[in-house]
Amino acid sequence: LEGIGDDCAVLRIGGGHDLLVTTDLYLEGVHFRRDWFPPAAVGHCCLTRGLSDIAAMGGMPTAAFLSLALPSDIPQRWVDEFFRGWTALARTFGVPLAGGDLGQSPADRDNKGRVMADVTVLGIVPGCTAVLRSHARPGDGIYLTGKLGGASALIAEYSQGGKPKAKAARPLFWPVPRLQAGSYLRQRGLVSAMIDVSDGLSTDLDHLCERSGCGAAIEASAIPHANGPKGPVETHFALHGGEDYELLFTARTGTRIPSRIAGVPVTRIGHITRERRMVLIQDRKRSVLSPGGWEHFRPAPPVLPSAVQKRATDRQSR
Amino acid sequence: LEGIGDDCAVLRIGGGHDLLVTTDLYLEGVHFRRDWFPPAAVGHCCLTRGLSDIAAMGGMPTAAFLSLALPSDIPQRWVDEFFRGWTALARTFGVPLAGGDLGQSPADRDNKGRVMADVTVLGIVPGCTAVLRSHARPGDGIYLTGKLGGASALIAEYSQGGKPKAKAARPLFWPVPRLQAGSYLRQRGLVSAMIDVSDGLSTDLDHLCERSGCGAAIEASAIPHANGPKGPVETHFALHGGEDYELLFTARTGTRIPSRIAGVPVTRIGHITRERRMVLIQDRKRSVLSPGGWEHFRPAPPVLPSAVQKRATDRQSR
Repeated sequence: LEGIGDDCAVLRIGGGHDLLVTTDLYLEGVHFRRDWFPPAAVGHCCLTRGLSDIAAMGGMPTAAFLSLALPSDIPQRWVDEFFRGWTALARTFGVPLAGGDLGQSPADRDNKGRVMADVTVLGIVPGCTAVLRSHARPGDGIYLTGKLGGASALIAEYSQGGKPKAKAARPLFWPVPRLQAGSYLRQRGLVSAMIDVSDGLSTDLDHLCERSGCGAAIEASAIPHANGPKGPVETHFALHGGEDYELLFTARTGTRIPSRIAGVPVTRIGHITRERRMVLIQDRKRSVLSPGGWEHFRPAPPVLPSAVQKRATDRQSR
Repeated sequence: LEGIGDDCAVLRIGGGHDLLVTTDLYLEGVHFRRDWFPPAAVGHCCLTRGLSDIAAMGGMPTAAFLSLALPSDIPQRWVDEFFRGWTALARTFGVPLAGGDLGQSPADRDNKGRVMADVTVLGIVPGCTAVLRSHARPGDGIYLTGKLGGASALIAEYSQGGKPKAKAARPLFWPVPRLQAGSYLRQRGLVSAMIDVSDGLSTDLDHLCERSGCGAAIEASAIPHANGPKGPVETHFALHGGEDYELLFTARTGTRIPSRIAGVPVTRIGHITRERRMVLIQDRKRSVLSPGGWEHFRPAPPVLPSAVQKRATDRQSR
């Protein structure tokens, strides 16, 4: 057993493979809102959370388990649509729903309960090959799949009363877990450490650095910004916004990383440093980068706070 | 992969063993109340729910995962005590906490959030030996470990404003998952089908009968009633009350079942029938026994309804 504090726990099961296990809450009012999200997108995103953690270990998913607490007055149609979204994604990656639990979520005084989901996904990797967060070394290049900030920019738009069109809202509602890219990187031994960017680049990079006992220097101009409805998203979304489910990984100096894996662009955004802090290089100026993405138990956290808080880089080290 | 609809999912993992996976919600206001339960007992019962499902397959637990959504204002002391209760039980059975997730539960208008837990437990059994619910056959004897109704009688007492003493409240707060008994029965091949009694005897026996495609005849006088504060509990608690976490199992005619396994008494309470319904034999009269334990999504379910509803046996078949 290893991987505690990583995207997944890794269990030695013999037979040439290690078992990956990940468990993620997906909560109405914290991770999604029922008045914004199509119910099928809630099912899709819920499963994506789990699959993305398997991707971040370089594994392939084998079975999913869903615990779902539902308000007593939820329309049957909502539940059907939730499972339609879940099932479509599950079929894409061949992940059977192997069990779970169903409960009734408590109602508040308005008799409104909230949807609370917990998703467990099991996956496998060949024995001793799971990619951990902890093996980055000074000098390693830092890379990203895809583009960042698309989901959080959309949340900000919804928060301000906007109504993005269905197609424009895809980064928020239909993120794709990067299972092929994660598996490709592991199989070819290209990657030293990996994590998925579910909480925001600055937060997840901080997790990777902490686990590896090192720091990072990031080129602001190199971070691939997603396209929002009005062009590329603002930098704080790309730096701190969550819910993008891209992969953040490191590779030893000299490793040739393809510019595109499984159809997804891959970008080098910086390198790992010996000094244990994160630095953002912007217009040739260096500033300390603090984790600004979603973290639980901040005082009075608003809904999906990573997205609506305009946190620029913080010049104070933590 | 088998066991869908059973206590656990069973996954073939090679290496001579099958993997068991169970996921259970444990919700404030549904499964426990913070004003009744010591916080350590909430942690204990939460893990017991998962371990009991592993016991019901004849397996041994190997790792647990906990997703916990907590109100923002919960005292740190409550959380510490929760984990103290969890950890004490986990140590007893050697089950490491291998991962999980932490979130903030949404607050209602009073700014009161509720504790919502989801526990996943992995376990193992030697390949193809997991005890399923579906292999009972007409003629099999029906057996129970321990005594029933203790937990639900205590809930009824609390509901009526009673304040049972700590020692008397043990069946509700500190149930013991029957891992040794379940494992013993599997190892010796004594058992044909098994389920744990978490939702109440009538409900869980109904699940076992449905999965096995048969019925059951139960002798009311044979059901071991737990001792409540005023002597043996009333029969409706033993028949329909949940949260006892005893094992209900069947064995082929002629199998010698010990009267005590791992220190726990074992009682024969009836037999499996060909006719697909449950019958209760009481004072030589036969009546149809309907599931009266806890089931989700009943109209306006009260808190822990299995316990406080005084449902006698129902003469109408479903």
